[in-house]
Amino acid sequence: MKSIEKFYSAVNNGKHICVGLDTDIEKIPGHLKKSDDPLFLFNKLIIDSTRSGAAAYKLNFAFYEASGIQGLISLKKTIEYIGDDIFIIGDAKRGDIGSTSAMYAKSVYDYFKCDSITLHPYMGYDSVQPFLEYKDKLNFVLTLTSNKSANDFETLTLSANEKLYQKVIGKVHEWNGQFANCGIVFGATQISQLQENIQLIKDLPILLPGVGAQGGSLEEVVTLFTQHDFTSYLINASRSIIYASPGSDFAEKAVEELNRLNAEIARLSLK
Amino acid sequence: MKSIEKFYSAVNNGKHICVGLDTDIEKIPGHLKKSDDPLFLFNKLIIDSTRSGAAAYKLNFAFYEASGIQGLISLKKTIEYIGDDIFIIGDAKRGDIGSTSAMYAKSVYDYFKCDSITLHPYMGYDSVQPFLEYKDKLNFVLTLTSNKSANDFETLTLSANEKLYQKVIGKVHEWNGQFANCGIVFGATQISQLQENIQLIKDLPILLPGVGAQGGSLEEVVTLFTQHDFTSYLINASRSIIYASPGSDFAEKAVEELNRLNAEIARLSLK
Repeated sequence: MKSIEKFYSAVNNGKHICVGLDTDIEKIPGHLKKSDDPLFLFNKLIIDSTRSGAAAYKLNFAFYEASGIQGLISLKKTIEYIGDDIFIIGDAKRGDIGSTSAMYAKSVYDYFKCDSITLHPYMGYDSVQPFLEYKDKLNFVLTLTSNKSANDFETLTLSANEKLYQKVIGKVHEWNGQFANCGIVFGATQISQLQENIQLIKDLPILLPGVGAQGGSLEEVVTLFTQHDFTSYLINASRSIIYASPGSDFAEKAVEELNRLNAEIARLSLK
Repeated sequence: MKSIEKFYSAVNNGKHICVGLDTDIEKIPGHLKKSDDPLFLFNKLIIDSTRSGAAAYKLNFAFYEASGIQGLISLKKTIEYIGDDIFIIGDAKRGDIGSTSAMYAKSVYDYFKCDSITLHPYMGYDSVQPFLEYKDKLNFVLTLTSNKSANDFETLTLSANEKLYQKVIGKVHEWNGQFANCGIVFGATQISQLQENIQLIKDLPILLPGVGAQGGSLEEVVTLFTQHDFTSYLINASRSIIYASPGSDFAEKAVEELNRLNAEIARLSLK
């Protein structure tokens, strides 16, 4: 299946939870640390328990890069272990001049074989274009993010009485015109702005971080999307799933939390 | 020597050329490709020949990540080979929510042991803050970049008749208030805007990419800085130095080009 088809196959089947593998060596249960590759072993057990209920997995590259070469080996093994059936997001937040972005694309798409990436819009079209050349992939561009300092720049008002992040959404529509392989990242903590911009976003796939530890409300997000018959969304949950228990039952508790979220989405999606 | 002192030690001694190790496996001379680690071997030979004339080395992470684990091994070895005496910029263009940026900082500063990093401003203060905590490092934030699409967002006019990149420069001054460990990236291709903003930039260290292959003029940049008695700058040259010759004399041709640039800077710096 093509990368982008994996995304639509999941969301069209009512699966919307993206399991965020922000795996921190400091936070995984002690008994795993004796293994040769604790990051991978933790991920493997999480994947084994959540595979049937997850819409996607999101690999936060920073958490692997923090452990250097060994961390990147764990990242590569994790992606191979997930395999071809589930949509994999390389949450790498890349973006540079064209010739450099082409190299980042080579890394995340050709080498790590992710289905999707997250991108910084700041440098504009030519910094994103090399990723768009991968026609079957899904490129999520940051718009209004879930962090507090999103207000430093993203919500600044432009002359035309438009906010910066709204201008970005407009540009993503343009960039999406060629191969229909763009989406946006929109923080689940920003519910009123999400509501305000639902018409502007139209049919762009949305990746929403910020539910759980960051305080975003799953109920508000799903209710809003249901009202607008919008289904092309992934809600990321990282810490609330993978660290649902600090003990040796972490994998069972992870799937319990995933099942709880899935059940809540199913309930809220009924009109 | 502390990281930031290495920067000032170089620029205060009239050294301003940062050698950009954008090392592309496709572009290095054929005879090196038989080696176990062609990327590292190429870098080693460039470093051996340019070490005495270089103000800094800039490692463009994308070019190493493109080769996956092996590329990152080459990156690590290159940084170790440069050693403690020369300022090393990890050109990684990172930026994410605070807890994730802390992981990227751990990777670039603790693991790879760079002296400096390049950062995306889009997500605002809390995405940059974990890097600032490394008080002795130098954090270069993107402002007006050298690529054509810089006009998509960076030069947008805000309500207060200020452009987005100027707002970013203002914020970098705020962020710099705590530990004086911030600088900016400003494209050398943007000479009229550099001139216009020289007072706004004040004493912030500047990293200028875009001279050489991208078309920026070394002469215009150095003349402007000399007129303003401004010395805290690094001009990056990547392709024009490291690929000065496609043949087995690449390392000699690299140092010739570096010497030529250094001589030109010395000439232009005389008032």
